[in-house]
Amino acid sequence: MITQLKKHLLDEFGIDFQNDAYLLEAFTHASYVNEHPKEKLKYYERIEFLGDAVIQLCVSEYLFARYPNLPEGKLSKLRSAMVCEDSFSKFAQECHFDEYILLGKGEEKANARQRSSLLCDIFEAFIGALYLDQGKAAVEQFINRVVFPKIDLGWFATYMDHKTELQELLQQSGTRQIVYSMVSEEGPDNAKTYVMQVSVDGEFIGQGAGHSKKAAEQMAAYAALQRLK
Amino acid sequence: MITQLKKHLLDEFGIDFQNDAYLLEAFTHASYVNEHPKEKLKYYERIEFLGDAVIQLCVSEYLFARYPNLPEGKLSKLRSAMVCEDSFSKFAQECHFDEYILLGKGEEKANARQRSSLLCDIFEAFIGALYLDQGKAAVEQFINRVVFPKIDLGWFATYMDHKTELQELLQQSGTRQIVYSMVSEEGPDNAKTYVMQVSVDGEFIGQGAGHSKKAAEQMAAYAALQRLK
Repeated sequence: MITQLKKHLLDEFGIDFQNDAYLLEAFTHASYVNEHPKEKLKYYERIEFLGDAVIQLCVSEYLFARYPNLPEGKLSKLRSAMVCEDSFSKFAQECHFDEYILLGKGEEKANARQRSSLLCDIFEAFIGALYLDQGKAAVEQFINRVVFPKIDLGWFATYMDHKTELQELLQQSGTRQIVYSMVSEEGPDNAKTYVMQVSVDGEFIGQGAGHSKKAAEQMAAYAALQRLK
Repeated sequence: MITQLKKHLLDEFGIDFQNDAYLLEAFTHASYVNEHPKEKLKYYERIEFLGDAVIQLCVSEYLFARYPNLPEGKLSKLRSAMVCEDSFSKFAQECHFDEYILLGKGEEKANARQRSSLLCDIFEAFIGALYLDQGKAAVEQFINRVVFPKIDLGWFATYMDHKTELQELLQQSGTRQIVYSMVSEEGPDNAKTYVMQVSVDGEFIGQGAGHSKKAAEQMAAYAALQRLK
């Protein structure tokens, strides 16, 4: 398993993992350890404990720098939306980490490999392993590719409420008419991408894309805010 | 305020702070910003958001390395005990940070300077400022001096339950008599230090100190575990 996983990491992410023990620990579930007592394996929970704190800092640092005017309450909401089981399990699947988990037979039958909580744990454990193996810069490079682009795809846009911010900014100079309208709608039903634009008093001020109309509106508002500030 | 604070940081902790803006932000409360609108100050909440994640990682990393055999559940409990309002407000006071907070008049009257939640915020904000100014190694050096020694003083010992761990280890080889007894009790009533020892079947196996008998027993059990493993 480790050989294939290392090849996968190198091919897909350019990560040349050095210490196999960290990687093995990160992808080993307790149920597998219990079924193979002679192998004296460690399961992923300790390394996940570390990984959780690593990604929390990397995401915090990124948001702090990227949104210099966002108040703390919004930064926290956005961080919570990014650093959660729902997101992390999706990242784990997108990285095909589910294929490499060492699971006990019972858990395998119970379909644990697709369980969102387990996938989230594995993602955090991998971050912990990468941190131990290659340090924070390597983790940043990885999440820069896997996590942060999702912001611009509008994954977390509903948590940011740029629309309210835009409205408040524009109305400082009197009531104005803000209109959101759809530019396009693409892709199959289960993976649609919407493009929305926003105009003020009939003038175009921003455009954004997202997986829902609401998310795309938020991204359009964000683009407008960047432009107006 | 900044000049005195910088002198204090240099004299007490050897920290030569470079960017005054970070330090000012970390010690400025929203109430002060509201009372001084012309100064265009930032208040500490954003930098505290960052500092919280920084100290969370530093503490996690330390615990992960120091207790290689502690399962994740116990690491998490210990981290929660260390990274909390109660501890951080004490650290802030110990570092005399309370003396440098820029507070509005109303909050000053309401005695906010001694409020535990505010002191905790300021401690995290300072960590965020130090991280931005000098990076993670400088934060580690600081908490290595201010935070980690408290572990050996038994501050968080009740969260670790070394006593149960010791009992389980010793009883693997049959029932044995584990006895804790007091060695000494020193200091004034409000700041006592207890030293407790633990013996098994009459033989001394460890000794520890703490601010309560319970904490000192936990530290004695921890010392015994280190010795027996």
